[in-house]
Amino acid sequence: MKELIQALPFIQQYRGKTMIIKYGGNAMINSGLKTGVIQDLLFMSCVGINVVLVHGGGPEIEAMLAATGKVSHFVNGLRYTDEETMEIVQMVLCGKVNKDITALIQMNQGRAVGLSGIDGGLLQAQRLISDRGDLGFVGEIKTVNPGPLELVLQSGAIPVVSSVAIGIGADSGRALNINADTAAAHIAGALKAEKLLLMTDVPGLLRDVQDPDSLIKTLGRTDLETLKKTGVIRKGMIPKAECCALALDQGVKTVHIIDGRIPHALLAEIFTKEGIGTKCFS
Amino acid sequence: MKELIQALPFIQQYRGKTMIIKYGGNAMINSGLKTGVIQDLLFMSCVGINVVLVHGGGPEIEAMLAATGKVSHFVNGLRYTDEETMEIVQMVLCGKVNKDITALIQMNQGRAVGLSGIDGGLLQAQRLISDRGDLGFVGEIKTVNPGPLELVLQSGAIPVVSSVAIGIGADSGRALNINADTAAAHIAGALKAEKLLLMTDVPGLLRDVQDPDSLIKTLGRTDLETLKKTGVIRKGMIPKAECCALALDQGVKTVHIIDGRIPHALLAEIFTKEGIGTKCFS
Amino acid sequence: MKELIQALPFIQQYRGKTMIIKYGGNAMINSGLKTGVIQDLLFMSCVGINVVLVHGGGPEIEAMLAATGKVSHFVNGLRYTDEETMEIVQMVLCGKVNKDITALIQMNQGRAVGLSGIDGGLLQAQRLISDRGDLGFVGEIKTVNPGPLELVLQSGAIPVVSSVAIGIGADSGRALNINADTAAAHIAGALKAEKLLLMTDVPGLLRDVQDPDSLIKTLGRTDLETLKKTGVIRKGMIPKAECCALALDQGVKTVHIIDGRIPHALLAEIFTKEGIGTKCFS
Amino acid sequence: MKELIQALPFIQQYRGKTMIIKYGGNAMINSGLKTGVIQDLLFMSCVGINVVLVHGGGPEIEAMLAATGKVSHFVNGLRYTDEETMEIVQMVLCGKVNKDITALIQMNQGRAVGLSGIDGGLLQAQRLISDRGDLGFVGEIKTVNPGPLELVLQSGAIPVVSSVAIGIGADSGRALNINADTAAAHIAGALKAEKLLLMTDVPGLLRDVQDPDSLIKTLGRTDLETLKKTGVIRKGMIPKAECCALALDQGVKTVHIIDGRIPHALLAEIFTKEGIGTKCFS
Amino acid sequence: MKELIQALPFIQQYRGKTMIIKYGGNAMINSGLKTGVIQDLLFMSCVGINVVLVHGGGPEIEAMLAATGKVSHFVNGLRYTDEETMEIVQMVLCGKVNKDITALIQMNQGRAVGLSGIDGGLLQAQRLISDRGDLGFVGEIKTVNPGPLELVLQSGAIPVVSSVAIGIGADSGRALNINADTAAAHIAGALKAEKLLLMTDVPGLLRDVQDPDSLIKTLGRTDLETLKKTGVIRKGMIPKAECCALALDQGVKTVHIIDGRIPHALLAEIFTKEGIGTKCFS
Amino acid sequence: MKELIQALPFIQQYRGKTMIIKYGGNAMINSGLKTGVIQDLLFMSCVGINVVLVHGGGPEIEAMLAATGKVSHFVNGLRYTDEETMEIVQMVLCGKVNKDITALIQMNQGRAVGLSGIDGGLLQAQRLISDRGDLGFVGEIKTVNPGPLELVLQSGAIPVVSSVAIGIGADSGRALNINADTAAAHIAGALKAEKLLLMTDVPGLLRDVQDPDSLIKTLGRTDLETLKKTGVIRKGMIPKAECCALALDQGVKTVHIIDGRIPHALLAEIFTKEGIGTKCFS
Repeated sequence: MKELIQALPFIQQYRGKTMIIKYGGNAMINSGLKTGVIQDLLFMSCVGINVVLVHGGGPEIEAMLAATGKVSHFVNGLRYTDEETMEIVQMVLCGKVNKDITALIQMNQGRAVGLSGIDGGLLQAQRLISDRGDLGFVGEIKTVNPGPLELVLQSGAIPVVSSVAIGIGADSGRALNINADTAAAHIAGALKAEKLLLMTDVPGLLRDVQDPDSLIKTLGRTDLETLKKTGVIRKGMIPKAECCALALDQGVKTVHIIDGRIPHALLAEIFTKEGIGTKCFS
Repeated sequence: MKELIQALPFIQQYRGKTMIIKYGGNAMINSGLKTGVIQDLLFMSCVGINVVLVHGGGPEIEAMLAATGKVSHFVNGLRYTDEETMEIVQMVLCGKVNKDITALIQMNQGRAVGLSGIDGGLLQAQRLISDRGDLGFVGEIKTVNPGPLELVLQSGAIPVVSSVAIGIGADSGRALNINADTAAAHIAGALKAEKLLLMTDVPGLLRDVQDPDSLIKTLGRTDLETLKKTGVIRKGMIPKAECCALALDQGVKTVHIIDGRIPHALLAEIFTKEGIGTKCFS
Repeated sequence: MKELIQALPFIQQYRGKTMIIKYGGNAMINSGLKTGVIQDLLFMSCVGINVVLVHGGGPEIEAMLAATGKVSHFVNGLRYTDEETMEIVQMVLCGKVNKDITALIQMNQGRAVGLSGIDGGLLQAQRLISDRGDLGFVGEIKTVNPGPLELVLQSGAIPVVSSVAIGIGADSGRALNINADTAAAHIAGALKAEKLLLMTDVPGLLRDVQDPDSLIKTLGRTDLETLKKTGVIRKGMIPKAECCALALDQGVKTVHIIDGRIPHALLAEIFTKEGIGTKCFS
Repeated sequence: MKELIQALPFIQQYRGKTMIIKYGGNAMINSGLKTGVIQDLLFMSCVGINVVLVHGGGPEIEAMLAATGKVSHFVNGLRYTDEETMEIVQMVLCGKVNKDITALIQMNQGRAVGLSGIDGGLLQAQRLISDRGDLGFVGEIKTVNPGPLELVLQSGAIPVVSSVAIGIGADSGRALNINADTAAAHIAGALKAEKLLLMTDVPGLLRDVQDPDSLIKTLGRTDLETLKKTGVIRKGMIPKAECCALALDQGVKTVHIIDGRIPHALLAEIFTKEGIGTKCFS
Repeated sequence: MKELIQALPFIQQYRGKTMIIKYGGNAMINSGLKTGVIQDLLFMSCVGINVVLVHGGGPEIEAMLAATGKVSHFVNGLRYTDEETMEIVQMVLCGKVNKDITALIQMNQGRAVGLSGIDGGLLQAQRLISDRGDLGFVGEIKTVNPGPLELVLQSGAIPVVSSVAIGIGADSGRALNINADTAAAHIAGALKAEKLLLMTDVPGLLRDVQDPDSLIKTLGRTDLETLKKTGVIRKGMIPKAECCALALDQGVKTVHIIDGRIPHALLAEIFTKEGIGTKCFS
Repeated sequence: MKELIQALPFIQQYRGKTMIIKYGGNAMINSGLKTGVIQDLLFMSCVGINVVLVHGGGPEIEAMLAATGKVSHFVNGLRYTDEETMEIVQMVLCGKVNKDITALIQMNQGRAVGLSGIDGGLLQAQRLISDRGDLGFVGEIKTVNPGPLELVLQSGAIPVVSSVAIGIGADSGRALNINADTAAAHIAGALKAEKLLLMTDVPGLLRDVQDPDSLIKTLGRTDLETLKKTGVIRKGMIPKAECCALALDQGVKTVHIIDGRIPHALLAEIFTKEGIGTKCFS
């Protein structure tokens, strides 16, 4: 019963708190890992944590674009989300990935309600004006209405959110594509979450990308800037770091970058003293 | 102000009551009719009626099946819903049609939350054992959990439901295809609805299909059986009549078959003395 | 169904808001108009507006004073409300007019509760010290206790209020006569009402009293002062304008002066874009 | 502190219970007695008893009929309540007596809300068909809607009810005159009251009307019939006895006939072991 | 019924207010007085006052110390509460005195729940660092958690509190002895009480200790300091005066020092104009 | 994370359910075991189980009786609980053991409220009439008022209950001694508990007392009678078996006899498939 007792102080600490999980990468593809994530969510929910799952769905979108013979436009080297592509994105994220996860949770005796950013005006966005040109139906979140999430949480179910927003202003009522990490960070901020947990396919933030032993266990908000300047945070880590900053700046207590390839990575990060990934605090 | 005053006794009568609308046919394709339906829903919701919208999405499913080059199997002359087809059905209904309607309601200053039968275990089904052979992933509803609908209604928003169920028993966790009329009837029964309104592309139940003036304005539960025996109810009307019977038998007060091609058909049926379609009572 | 659809945006806007109607003039005497007002109130109430009706009752008071052979005193040309007169005023307003309206609403399938300013300390007043001498038992409102109104509104019924106040201080427990327009304005202020609607026997505020086409459709709080100075607002309009100012200054959003001689004037003013009377905003 | 301690077990017993007081007779005319009754009501209310006051107003009605020169019709020796008389009755009861009592309670630091049987459909009646002929606008209670009383009681205020009913059926919306004792008994029944207290100008039920020492302290429901047969209950006591029976049969625990001429008769009856009047139990 | 009527304005004033009674001295030993106190509490509770009883238990502790042959240590003339003594103190206060009072209230048809400062972290303390040396397990209150008291009060029962605290910090989880007057003052402050009533064995604060007629009926917060300086408050009165100051400074409206040897002293102090003891106001 | 995942289905099953733990034996003496029990309780409470702890306190009572030189009477070989003994029992159970456990839970970051059967009339008893003679102040439970427990549970704290009852009837208000197992069984019945867990110093119910490997893992309600007849249940096990029967007959789902000498026996019994003791079901 050692593990249960070790978990106790964390359970005491986190009951009634809210945690947002950005679900993605290998943990969403590998069937065994997938079941593990669902169990972790259910454990968290059962001990009284308000769990919100946010997901994207890159590979499944690619597969459907391929199946329909859709070829991507590129503008200045960036993929352009045209109307047809957006339709596929919406359909796959809200109709396939979202409902599959929701069904899986319920198959494991949990209760889940799948939502998108469209439902109840959860994620309201305008078109992203990138300095590198028009990206099409890609949105930038302007307002989060946490009402629908609170409703589902109060009913004891787990909200599963697909990262599609509803347009306001010029694109009123249009679906807009949102990066799932960013969506998760905004939701975490709006719910004043205790933790935002980003599931990735890397061990966390590494001082030396080649050396898995160089994991940075904890860092503060200001370290984020320093590490970006010194080039430790670079390439794919830059948007993750920006999510950390965004969430912390909106009042989230800690943001965790964890390795979704490790079975039960969520429990290991939350309910042990050591944790397994990188933890950013403000 | 004549129309408002004429509507008053009906508003007084229906405040706080629940009405289920099966949305489909032309009213879902024609853009002007579509906006009219949304306005009707919002009017109903504003005067205190608990509105639940249930939709299918035949044409859009066909289009996506075509786009992905999927060819339908037939078994004894019936279309077989194989795994790939079911995936497309789920994706189109839950991801495209459902979210498009939800977005449209919100564009018109309403609040809506899109759900499927999977979410919160709303529609729980087993595979339908047809006497004409295995139809694949087609389900038969065994249990309705109205919890998620009640949650959304209490929050003042309109639930929009796509007719996909979650499997229980042998097909636990699998998505199953459900006829939208049947889904609407089951939901109406579970919510002890005042009315179930089936939007069709015909004027209602006609004594003589060729003669639009032969509309049967009202009929009782027992008349349904008689008219079936005498052949007045036949072909495509048979499943509609079965839906009527199903809903009435579960305690729904009246079921209405209305012509969705008429602008504002819902308001005209509910808030005028004459109505426009066929009304079945128990 | 055009009218219903035209009314929709106003219903969406005003649900859950509070509106105070000062009922008086022809609309209270003519039997057809009377029924129309009741229907308007019921429509407003049914679409979720919190309706409060405030009434005076000049003609009925005159009739009863005559019936009892009571002759009015005059002090400096102003009628003096002596004890006996006040008794008649109280009896007619609280016992006759108030209960007749309350009964009429219920005869039309509504629910209403008649109250006076005495009940629950709703209107607390002191004797009005006029610069033109002692007017007897005429009061000036010092405190409004909206509790009884909120109670009735929360129960879903329409409060009908007669403009008699309870004395505090030197006249503790005495009934005091209150001008109904002023009572309505004070109540509107205390309830932070969306609208105060004053039903009169004129088309609204006219730039030229002789010319009904010179109706001022909208004017701001500051215009009120200007129009008084320039003599556009004069005679009987001066107290109406003072009521507007009083209500606006206490946080009421808009005050409407409408012509109660027009059938369904309330609906026409509230649920159409054009309106029919004069609207003052702050 | 002896009296307080003696009152304690009764306070413990009656907290949260409901008591209906029929107020009338000398206690309503004599100014000192009047103040005493108000204090008694306030004491009862303060120790947690739900107090409902029901009143008639014979003398004040007579005075107003006289003042307006109204002469009574008689039919077979019974006074006929014609339309004009009913108007006076309604006006005096609802407008004068009711509001005067309500004001008096508030002058004594209590909170009261005056209602009539018309308000919120509290007392719904049809014309009384007497075996002695048509009595005009005299009603017989068919339904009591206790909603408005419960509302006021929950808000902590004392409801003061005038015995005028609203007509249903053939006389829909008409005011109908109701005997105040009967109204109180019906209300007591509808609220499943602990006690109905009838304030009279006699010591209670006397075995020998001439001998005040012959007071019957307690009697059961069946004794009422026996005493009527043996002539002990006769003349004016017969309707009182019928009220007792009516209330007991509807579930009221005890009915008390007390002498309103004794100062603080209510407290003496309720909070002492001996009591002062006649107590009927079922 | 004179006493009841005299009590009425005080009942009106104190309903829903909170009063803390420090119970001790003769009133806790003499069996007749004891019953009187219980009746007073029940009367107070019945008329809607939130009553909290706080008790010490000197004589019973002495008796048990004697029974177990425990001899007291003294440090600089002050009794030292060693571990064994503290165990006895805790056992007698929480196990004997507290439960005996709780049982007595219930024997008198009341409802009571006995608590100590340990339960629910009601009284949290650290060891008192006296300028006269270490006193052992004697505590100084650092935090009051009124939650458990509010819980019991909301359920309609009377909380009975024994003055033992739970240690925080260095003595985490240890029981600590607390002076009952001080505990009562802290609780009164935390509950923003209307009154703190200290039951003593003296008539109140006397200007001349020898002369019972020299009772100071009322005094202000600042008078306390003056009277201490001038020696009127001295010896055993000093800690009482400090309790008064402590409670008043934390927002308690009035503190009363009353003579528990007078039967029904509580009622006489609270429900009469004259009162019987000394009243301090801020 | 294996243990957490193994515990998950049990946590899902038991959330929101109520479990009563009879705490006693070695687990209450040994300091390490004691801490383990507290951690187990906190874990159970944290995962949403409503935990109620019931305790006796044999050894501590013995020690205090010895310390005060109290010698036990015996009547027909049974210890007689005279008044003085009962006073010690009450004091030790309610004042020492109860508050020590309550403090210990809070030292471990939990919240607990200590109650006795006296508080709020939780355990109401009459003197036990044994067929072997008068046993003095020993009680038999007649009524359980679960109100105070529900209050504490709803506030999220753990109720700790000492097995002392309040007398009703002839011994009104007297404290009566209750066997802790029996008290726990009655409380479990009154709360319709999911489980009653009896902590003992044996491995459970053994088929052969000498052979620890002969543990009966599960047995039904009827087996209890059979095993008693065949002598497998005998001596000290008989009262335990009677407690099982009592609880099961009152609707408790399962009763567990577990070995409190095993660290974390509670968690091992509740959150593993194998369990460690004997489980009786109805």
